[in-house]
Amino acid sequence: MTDRPSPLGNPEHPLELSAHTMRAMVEQAMARIIPHIESLPDQPAADTSGGEALARSLREPIPQQGQPFETLFDDIFRITRTSFTASGPGYLAYIPGGGLFHAAVADLIADAINRYVGVWAAAPGLAQLEANVIRWFCDMVGYPASAGGFLTSGGSLANLSAVVTARRTHLADDFLRGTIYTSNQVHHSVLKAALLAGFPAGNIRSVPVDEDFRMRLDALADRIAVDRREGYQPFLVVGSAGTTNTGAVDDLTALADIAGRENMWFHADAAYGGFFVLTDRGRQRLAGLERADSLSLDPHKGLFVPYGTGSLLVRDRELLARAHGVSADYMPAIQHHDDDLVDFCEISPELTRPFRGLRVWLPIKMHGIDVFARALDEKLDLSHWITDQLERVDGLEILARPQLTVTAFRVMRPGWSVDEANSATRALLDAVNRRRRVYLTGTMLDERFVIRICVLSFRTHQDRMEMCLEDIVEALGELALESA
Amino acid sequence: MTDRPSPLGNPEHPLELSAHTMRAMVEQAMARIIPHIESLPDQPAADTSGGEALARSLREPIPQQGQPFETLFDDIFRITRTSFTASGPGYLAYIPGGGLFHAAVADLIADAINRYVGVWAAAPGLAQLEANVIRWFCDMVGYPASAGGFLTSGGSLANLSAVVTARRTHLADDFLRGTIYTSNQVHHSVLKAALLAGFPAGNIRSVPVDEDFRMRLDALADRIAVDRREGYQPFLVVGSAGTTNTGAVDDLTALADIAGRENMWFHADAAYGGFFVLTDRGRQRLAGLERADSLSLDPHKGLFVPYGTGSLLVRDRELLARAHGVSADYMPAIQHHDDDLVDFCEISPELTRPFRGLRVWLPIKMHGIDVFARALDEKLDLSHWITDQLERVDGLEILARPQLTVTAFRVMRPGWSVDEANSATRALLDAVNRRRRVYLTGTMLDERFVIRICVLSFRTHQDRMEMCLEDIVEALGELALESA
Repeated sequence: MTDRPSPLGNPEHPLELSAHTMRAMVEQAMARIIPHIESLPDQPAADTSGGEALARSLREPIPQQGQPFETLFDDIFRITRTSFTASGPGYLAYIPGGGLFHAAVADLIADAINRYVGVWAAAPGLAQLEANVIRWFCDMVGYPASAGGFLTSGGSLANLSAVVTARRTHLADDFLRGTIYTSNQVHHSVLKAALLAGFPAGNIRSVPVDEDFRMRLDALADRIAVDRREGYQPFLVVGSAGTTNTGAVDDLTALADIAGRENMWFHADAAYGGFFVLTDRGRQRLAGLERADSLSLDPHKGLFVPYGTGSLLVRDRELLARAHGVSADYMPAIQHHDDDLVDFCEISPELTRPFRGLRVWLPIKMHGIDVFARALDEKLDLSHWITDQLERVDGLEILARPQLTVTAFRVMRPGWSVDEANSATRALLDAVNRRRRVYLTGTMLDERFVIRICVLSFRTHQDRMEMCLEDIVEALGELALESA
Repeated sequence: MTDRPSPLGNPEHPLELSAHTMRAMVEQAMARIIPHIESLPDQPAADTSGGEALARSLREPIPQQGQPFETLFDDIFRITRTSFTASGPGYLAYIPGGGLFHAAVADLIADAINRYVGVWAAAPGLAQLEANVIRWFCDMVGYPASAGGFLTSGGSLANLSAVVTARRTHLADDFLRGTIYTSNQVHHSVLKAALLAGFPAGNIRSVPVDEDFRMRLDALADRIAVDRREGYQPFLVVGSAGTTNTGAVDDLTALADIAGRENMWFHADAAYGGFFVLTDRGRQRLAGLERADSLSLDPHKGLFVPYGTGSLLVRDRELLARAHGVSADYMPAIQHHDDDLVDFCEISPELTRPFRGLRVWLPIKMHGIDVFARALDEKLDLSHWITDQLERVDGLEILARPQLTVTAFRVMRPGWSVDEANSATRALLDAVNRRRRVYLTGTMLDERFVIRICVLSFRTHQDRMEMCLEDIVEALGELALESA
């Protein structure tokens, strides 16, 4: 330290804020964040009415003049009210995101220090914290010491890198006869990944599922055999470890067997379901996950961190390096001290990117992993509880009991056509969501429209599930009266 | 609001922190962040000594027990000291990152509210803020109303999506004869993007450059003609709008002409250089950028935000949608109210991902864009100033004067071989970096090793450039003495 005055807050360089302004910004942000989080249980689970007008009102050319940050913060929190309350306890839609506040503080720190962790040598300790996170994930799923991986922005890019790694491992440059096998319940990011990685849409085989929405193994084996006879190159099986539609978990052990026998890559999309390996029930359900050649896990789902952190793990990290390696003159020499001091930019598609590790590392270090395991166990309990309750409700039909934490059901009466059931189910979904204590979404199972309940937020507890049940039962009663 | 007690800080649900803990975490984080930022000018520009031992000491199995966050914060800031001080004023290496504190607060807020902006309908106002940022970028570069784009984690994924969009626009499913043209100075992320997108490495044509390190137009035209004769399908020209090696800007107008004539896609990698369009000199230098079919711009470079935000802009956003579109049953219906209410997940590879818009929107709204333009102008001045100074130093040879803000030079004496010059230049680089007031990196220009000075941090001002000059001159003097 010299006795030179603080360089901060120099009016000639306004982008370097004074310590006073930094403190004031954070204080003002917190003065809005804490009431926001405290009121989450009372906020509507979703309210986007007037959203289009709101969005249009916000359009503006690039500002020439600045505005006080307090005004801007007020704007942000006002605008936020018109949205799906994705971080609230009543959000049981799609796959709920998290929103651990720990991660917000981790990002505050990571942004403020702004170190580069893509190359090990640029910040060895910080890169190691991220490497620890990856190693923890590998240990959780039962991967060997040769495994490795990296953090992504989410499941889509993890799946993309998986497809590319499989392609570059199993196929030659001329890969256009390579075929990919998924169940018809697979997440659409896998299809997108295949297209982006260069495969014609026609090379993606959509294998039918059994009554539990799991990939039919006989159909898979048949299709692979047919494709081989026709000169295709089957090279990749993608199993789902928790589908988005119904939470179905494919028979991962059987898929690993088939992939092994056929000399194919086995990727498990465990973006939603993977972290349930932390629980006893989940571990049983996910048996065989450790045999996948690669798998996607989304910390912004099962570890409750805010949106923006997925991961790809690969049993043999050397294959990641081979799939992604390119060198350049201006890059620092890659230092292969040993296999564990990894340059993430060498094994992933990104060079410069955020320091994602800290937002996962900090909450785990603050609580220990058991707290997360217990929270996930609670989600399993809640999901089973509401399914049992719904099963007893006259007029509802459960189409998918939770394999993890998704339930799918519909309104059905004896003698109804599919169309009648679909229409009543859509009406029920709207009536439940209008109550705004929970937000549910639907999907199609074949031609059947169903309502899904996905329990994954760390903020969702028994009280909210009771509200969910009440609202469903009441709304169903109203609909019956209306149609009577 | 009900009179129900705050749900926060319930010991049964430890992941939901109490308001008290949230405030304490932020306070403790700030108590470390502010001194850290205040001391940046006095921190070594890079210090990674002992990095390997540090990294190894940090390895640990997944914790079962939690630790107090104060201890963890102390660890983070201690670990951070062993790194390239990428956010400091003396970091003139690679392409300096930013680190605006505004963005750290924006991420704190974005993480705490954790809304989903990938689909317009889920958070219309917040998605619009991100759409505003994209529109501002389009306006900056002179793109028409039909243009669009999205924010990425950095330039690598922007370039990947550019290659995929060009491929899906210009080539059929069977694209393996498609060829890509770049200068031999292109950023290696473009080569990586091509590989990930399915092109054989041999389909990437490395076109030689002129004495200013710009792609040779005659060589480009010749190579395209040869390839057409040989049955290849030339479909993509990638121009560099600021190379990493020397900051060279290709003749973008001429490349646009050639691409137009040849019915090829023209992508400009403006990740480093693009935001200089905000300045008069930059706009002149980047003439023709607005004619690119797509371009990459990295806000974490030229807009000084922390690592983690790049962008891809495309003249015709409909082509992005066509290149990335896939649908799924559980996705909300895509609402095409009009072309400006965009679902980012439909035009980009990511579905769930962080709300990147806020960290760019907030600093621009707080200051107005002119403050950024002036800061970039300052970087141009600084870069020219030090180049002029170095030119007068006996024993130094400037190999690249700044086209934007990169200077490349080496040690050279009459009669020296290339090897002698390289060895002396490496010695000079080490001697300058040992002083730790600036951190510089080298690169190869053909067989010539050069030292680069890249001025881009919002924290680098005239005083630091004077230190840089002093250190170079002194170090050069010492080396001359040693070899005498």
